[in-house]
Amino acid sequence: MELYLIRHGIAEEHQPGLKDQERQLTKEGRQKTEKVAQKLIKLELNFDLILTSPLSRARQTAEILIAAKLSSQLEESSHLAPDGNIENWLKDWYYPQNYPAKTQLALVGHEPCLSSWAEILLWGEVKERLVLKKAGMIGIKLPETGSPLGRSQMFWLTSPKYLL
Amino acid sequence: MELYLIRHGIAEEHQPGLKDQERQLTKEGRQKTEKVAQKLIKLELNFDLILTSPLSRARQTAEILIAAKLSSQLEESSHLAPDGNIENWLKDWYYPQNYPAKTQLALVGHEPCLSSWAEILLWGEVKERLVLKKAGMIGIKLPETGSPLGRSQMFWLTSPKYLL
Repeated sequence: MELYLIRHGIAEEHQPGLKDQERQLTKEGRQKTEKVAQKLIKLELNFDLILTSPLSRARQTAEILIAAKLSSQLEESSHLAPDGNIENWLKDWYYPQNYPAKTQLALVGHEPCLSSWAEILLWGEVKERLVLKKAGMIGIKLPETGSPLGRSQMFWLTSPKYLL
Repeated sequence: MELYLIRHGIAEEHQPGLKDQERQLTKEGRQKTEKVAQKLIKLELNFDLILTSPLSRARQTAEILIAAKLSSQLEESSHLAPDGNIENWLKDWYYPQNYPAKTQLALVGHEPCLSSWAEILLWGEVKERLVLKKAGMIGIKLPETGSPLGRSQMFWLTSPKYLL
């Protein structure tokens, strides 16, 4: 199983009367995310499923990936919201699915959540040592059997600037 | 200080009568490394210094980076040989140089040495959780003051296939 943790693109700033969960991608954020999606297509990536945080800026990022045909399947998971916990996600979502080893799964979400999930998968604890920029991504290979916590390997970490 | 840990390109196999330190880059290894170097130039990377392991395959990789004009300075360090130790390198080489914060330094070497160095810089210990392919690289930002051990941040990890 390969997991691609993708941070949402550049979104509009916080402002009075605008709920955090309704902040949209800016025009620049949308364009840069579209370019990243095109590059991922060129790299022949294809996800069996894209799972997104329900917040607008993540959902819009995931929809750009779907529009670029990086996957035909999109689902929401509340575990990917900013306060989400990877152990709950594994328990409620990952283990029950019992995906085969070759599955490629993309998770679209937020910082510092995604890089913390990556650190827990790799080293079993969070030390805030990974820099994940907006529309950037982390590629992690999960072990074929047993818990992935502290046992997974990272093969990719990139910001958009190194992709475009 | 930004540190770019670069693994040598594809080299000829071990064979009787050929010393490990004299194994050369293959034609494919040379071509792929040249393409990576051109991509790094396109990304506007420039190193104040390239420090290489003295082994032929690393030295040849470093010379390809120099030929592409990624740096004008090339030096050898025995600490970058396959049994090199990062703490000795820091003590003998890094601390005495007292480089300014904006320095960009490339280290060309071997696995599993380079990814171990990265893990020690990030998390303070080696758990073999990073996958660094031949002609791939790891980008690490060191803190401005104090020891970088267990206190640095990773902003890039890529194999050639994601660059080309």
